[in-house]
Formats: sequence, structure tokens, C-alpha cells
Amino acid sequence: MFSITVRDHLMIAHSFRGEVFGPAQRLHGATFLVDATFRRPELDEDNIVVDIGLATQELGAVVAGLNYRNLDDEPEFKGTNTSTEFLAKFIADKLAERVHQGALGEGARGLTGIAVTLHESHIAWASYERDL
Amino acid sequence: MFSITVRDHLMIAHSFRGEVFGPAQRLHGATFLVDATFRRPELDEDNIVVDIGLATQELGAVVAGLNYRNLDDEPEFKGTNTSTEFLAKFIADKLAERVHQGALGEGARGLTGIAVTLHESHIAWASYERDL
Amino acid sequence: MFSITVRDHLMIAHSFRGEVFGPAQRLHGATFLVDATFRRPELDEDNIVVDIGLATQELGAVVAGLNYRNLDDEPEFKGTNTSTEFLAKFIADKLAERVHQGALGEGARGLTGIAVTLHESHIAWASYERDL
Amino acid sequence: MFSITVRDHLMIAHSFRGEVFGPAQRLHGATFLVDATFRRPELDEDNIVVDIGLATQELGAVVAGLNYRNLDDEPEFKGTNTSTEFLAKFIADKLAERVHQGALGEGARGLTGIAVTLHESHIAWASYERDL
Amino acid sequence: MFSITVRDHLMIAHSFRGEVFGPAQRLHGATFLVDATFRRPELDEDNIVVDIGLATQELGAVVAGLNYRNLDDEPEFKGTNTSTEFLAKFIADKLAERVHQGALGEGARGLTGIAVTLHESHIAWASYERDL
Amino acid sequence: MFSITVRDHLMIAHSFRGEVFGPAQRLHGATFLVDATFRRPELDEDNIVVDIGLATQELGAVVAGLNYRNLDDEPEFKGTNTSTEFLAKFIADKLAERVHQGALGEGARGLTGIAVTLHESHIAWASYERDL
Repeated sequence: MFSITVRDHLMIAHSFRGEVFGPAQRLHGATFLVDATFRRPELDEDNIVVDIGLATQELGAVVAGLNYRNLDDEPEFKGTNTSTEFLAKFIADKLAERVHQGALGEGARGLTGIAVTLHESHIAWASYERDL
Repeated sequence: MFSITVRDHLMIAHSFRGEVFGPAQRLHGATFLVDATFRRPELDEDNIVVDIGLATQELGAVVAGLNYRNLDDEPEFKGTNTSTEFLAKFIADKLAERVHQGALGEGARGLTGIAVTLHESHIAWASYERDL
Repeated sequence: MFSITVRDHLMIAHSFRGEVFGPAQRLHGATFLVDATFRRPELDEDNIVVDIGLATQELGAVVAGLNYRNLDDEPEFKGTNTSTEFLAKFIADKLAERVHQGALGEGARGLTGIAVTLHESHIAWASYERDL
Repeated sequence: MFSITVRDHLMIAHSFRGEVFGPAQRLHGATFLVDATFRRPELDEDNIVVDIGLATQELGAVVAGLNYRNLDDEPEFKGTNTSTEFLAKFIADKLAERVHQGALGEGARGLTGIAVTLHESHIAWASYERDL
Repeated sequence: MFSITVRDHLMIAHSFRGEVFGPAQRLHGATFLVDATFRRPELDEDNIVVDIGLATQELGAVVAGLNYRNLDDEPEFKGTNTSTEFLAKFIADKLAERVHQGALGEGARGLTGIAVTLHESHIAWASYERDL
Repeated sequence: MFSITVRDHLMIAHSFRGEVFGPAQRLHGATFLVDATFRRPELDEDNIVVDIGLATQELGAVVAGLNYRNLDDEPEFKGTNTSTEFLAKFIADKLAERVHQGALGEGARGLTGIAVTLHESHIAWASYERDL
């Protein structure tokens, strides 16, 4: 199995609801390093998993939709705890949509899986992986 | 599949028995960065894998049981090569026990796997993963 | 010249005023990795720069005063752009106060300088250094 | 499942053929950090996955066969896009050969899988994993 | 003293002349992580060292002038060993020119120093620092 | 001012004397990442600070003299707290001797300073710098 991973980052504000979150129930924020991994069993005819330029561009577009925002104010996340693990899935699903729409090129039709890891600090990160 | 990972570290002395270990047969030591990963297929009702505060606290408790010790003197490891891979399993099994005892909260009953990675330097690390 | 550095982190929300900040004028947030460096020309009688336990504890206390907050709501920062470089100085000055108060031990009287670096992402960081 | 990983690096020149590569069609180069992972379900009698000294030595030997070269001039890669993902497989396959030849020791007969990750920068990496 | 640092990277081919370089006399290549640091004793009226957006953009422009090239073929480097330390100075000098031309904004007139670090691998890097 | 830095590591056991060290008074151990920096104001005729191959080799030789040892048993360190900052100076001084003996080549006569940083974990490190 082959994979390539590209890294970007985003900086957001948010708060959590639920006693389990302790002081993180207050409005605070995070820088998330975002690692998007694309998997496939065989390389395409150019000997790559996917056009890394397109992968970087599409990850950048997904990240831009969240960046420099207070997620508490985004209608899309109304009533949702935008935890690190939730956001990993949110970004993975957005990337999957783009693959299916052809935004990562025709070659990307061979992709079989996506994984997204969000690092919230040097000592904590979360991942979500799914099939395509 | 979702996961979260938390990082801690420990600093121990030990020695190895067996020619394969070369100069590491002498009493020496290591700083291990310890990454503990908790996995589950669906998030809980708070939208998380596990309470990251409890996960950090329980990893800290397991690490504290080993930290600042000469492992050669610990009865628990009598006659055992406390290799990086062995210690990864040791810590993973201790964490699994704590999950089963409820120390990571009722929500942690949904966890299906644990993985532990120990970095012994910037150029070598070992992992162990198991089901819960 | 000797130094020791300890790392902690904080997660805050804030916004900036001024066109130069572009989209960061919106309420957003950041994880800051905080590296606090303590300098002195000679080691103390224990052969150390400063008690690393106390240094870690005092950095933790300073960080706790900012952590999980919306800095826009803190009276202390009213009308202030809480830029990464500003926060580096803020934390360095707080640590200097604690050194002068003796919170880092009597041996810390020999410290001659402090530097604080805040990493706002894997591709951007800011530092401030000062004499003691 | 257990694993150990060792890291080395190599510095090569190469160029790519295909519009998808954009400016990377020009002769350029890369430093690749190379992480080689060896997997097995149970530890050997020394309580290890594989002799880490031999693993490091054999990875070094494979890397030395590529290092400080213009891959465009290597007959072995004639007409081949030596992409990061291709090179990950190339190195994994070379390591697998060496395991089968006994170069990693008799204990290495218990290895069941190999994975190789090549980091081409701090924001992009590729992996290949295979059974043994 | 304050500073901010931004990171970019470039991927080039080159070769060295001189026995001291050993196998690096052959045409090979490197990924350089490029850290550009800007220093000044006091913050500007926006509470920053320099517009980090402009700093990133100008570093990107300097890097783009070198990226995906065989430096042996660049007339600018004819007969020059494009060592890591040489390239650190080359990039620092180009950034200094841009500061003097006003490309980093009027506020950047207060900058007093620049430092550039190029990481050629996880185990080797070079720096150059100069006044402005 | 130019500099180059090379990284190696060592793994040792030791204990500390003095209440300030808390649990680290017990026999324990550490992996130290060792970063050795060599400084000079102008490059040599090869356009380098120092032969990076020799620098790596000599750092390796100094590290080998400490590696895989219990420092409490080394006559050289009898009655000495082998703190991270002390070891940084120890290694820097050994490197300085080697420079003065010509082990880093004739070109190394132009070196004006050395700095050594020892990382004892991902959250703590110590440095020592001196003139040559």
C-alpha cells in the first residue's frame, strides 16, 4: 500500500460544552497542524499516488474554509463540539468529496483511503481515517 | 476509525543481556518519549474518543511507575530485557487495564484499541498495538 | 555562557486590530508552544543553571494565567494587540518578576538573562530576550 | 503487533517527466529522511523485533547505494519517475531482500512486514508498506 | 530584543568542488528548510516585529528564485561552491535588499538584523546572521 | 557570522546528589540529542565553516567516550553532578581541544566559537557556548 501526506495548518477559536472539557469550556483557541494522507494500492502511470500540487491546493482550500474563524459562530457547527477528532473527520470528508468531484485529477480515482491527523499541540493529536 | 494520542516521557537506566545488544549490555539509560494512542470506530456523545485529560493523567500515572528508576533493580523486570519494544507493550497493557477498570471514564468503554510508541532517540523508536 | 530551556504550551483565542493583520483581524485562536530559556555565565554549586523543576513549575504558573482564555476579554490586554512577539515579552517579564521574587530559588539569583520563544505554528515563531 | 523504526537520510538529484510535475520537471534535488519500519506479531527470544544495529546497518547500506547521486543517470532508473513514493517502495523491497538473505540475522525470519516512509520536506512525505 | 521567524523550503541539485566534500563532489541534491529571522529592539505601533504576511511572501519570492533548479547551471553561481552556509548568506542578503527596498513595509525600517538557517537534514544545518 | 551544526546522540545512566534533584537523585538515565555548533565570521576557501564530515566524525568520537555508560562509575566524573548543562560544557570543551589539535582540519583554525546543546527530552534542553 502506498500513501502520500501533505501538511498545512489552521488557527481557530472555539469552546466546548460538557464538564469533561474542564477549562476548555471557555472560549479559547488552537493552531492545528493538519496532515492529510491519501492511500492507494498501486501507483498511477506517472508513478505517484496523486498530484501532490493538487493535493496541497485542495487541502489548502478546505483549511481556508475554517481558518481564522471562531467555530462557535459558524452555522455549520451549531450545537457541535468541534473537538480535534471531529475536525479531523470534517476535513477528511471534505477532501473525500473533492476527490469524488475530480478536483484532485482523474488519476485520483484510484485512491482507496484518506486519513487526516490534527496536532493540537506537541503533546496531543487526533486522527480519522476512512475509505474512499 | 478515530484516534487520539497523548505524549509523555520517562528517563530510566537499564542494561541488556545478549551479544546482539553490543555496548548496550553495559548499564546505560534512555529518555523515552511515550505516545499513547486510543482508538474507537465512533465518537462518544461529547464528540471525543476519550477524555484527553483522563488519558493524560492515566498515562502520567503509568509513566510515573517507571520514571527515574534503574529497571535492572525492579523485581517486576527480573531477568527481562527491558527493550524499547517490550516497554511499549508493558505501558500499553497497563493502560488497557486502566481502561477496563474504568479509570478513563465510562465513555472509554467504547475504545477498541491501544497503541504505544516509545522514541528512544531522534532516529529510533518502537511500537506495540493491541485490541481492547 | 550556560542556559537551560523548558517547554510548555497554551491555547488561547484573540483578534488583532490593524489592516496589516488581514484575516487575523477576525476572532481566531492559537496554540503557542512556549520555550523559556534561563541564562547565566557560571553554574551554581549543584552544577545547574536553575532548578529545572521550579523553572517548569513557574513557567506552568505563568502559562496557566493565560491558558484557555479569550485574550480580547482580559482587562490586562485591553486595547493591546496580543501578537506572538508581545506575548513572548509578556511571559518573559512575568518570569523575570518571579526570579526576582525568589520563586525559582536562591540559586536563581545568579541568572543573567531570560529568553522566551512562542511557536504559533510549524512555520512561524517569535522570541523576546532580556537581561535580568 | 510490534514494530521498530530506524531513521537515516539521503541526498539526491533527479527530474520528473510529465506535466503533472510542473517545475519539478527541471533537474532539482531532495534530502529524503528515510524511516524503515520492521513488524512482527511476537518478539524474539532477546525480547526485540530485530537487531536494531543490523537494521541500521542494512538501511545504511541501501541508502548508500542511492546517496549523493543524480538518479537520472542511474541505469536502474532509466525511464522511471523516481518519485518519493516510488523510492519508498524501492528501499522497502531492497530491505525485504536483505531480510530474506539473512542479513538482518536469523531472528529476522519472524518479521512479517516492512514499511518505509520518505520525508521530502517538513510538509510532504510518502510511504510504502508490504508483507514479508 | 525581539524577533520573528518564518519557515519555507527549497529543493535543488548541485555539486561541490574540493576533496573535502568527498562523495558530495558528485551531482546530488538537497531539500533545505529555510528559517528567516527578523530582529529589532522594539516592536512597531502594531505591536509586531514585521508584517508576517509580507515576511512570508518575500521569503517565498527569494526561495522561488532558487527552487527546482540545478545550481551548477545558474550563471549567478558559476565557480561557486553553493554550500549550505553560502546559501544561508545568499538568502539573508536578498532579504536584506528587500527590506531596504521597502518590500516588507515601512515598519520594517526598524529592523536591525536578519538571520537565516538552512537545515539540509535532521542532523545538519547552517546559519548566517548580519546587521541591517 | 556563520555557523554549522551537526547532531548526534548518546544514552547514559547517572544519578544526582542534592535535594534540588528530587527523584532524579535515584539512578536513572537519559538519551541526549547533542547539537554541536561551530562559528566563524568568514567562510574558508571552500566556502564552508568547517569540513562537516570531520565535524561529524569528531563529535561522534567525543560522544562515543560517554555513550552506553553509567556516568556514576566514570572516574572522570567522581563527585560531579553530570547535569545536562555540565555535559554540554564537557562536550564543548572536548571539541575545542580537538579543534586546537587540528583534528577538524587546518581550515578549522578560523573557528571562533563553539556551542553545544543537549536535549534531554522534547520539553527540556541545556546549552553551553564558549570562544575558541
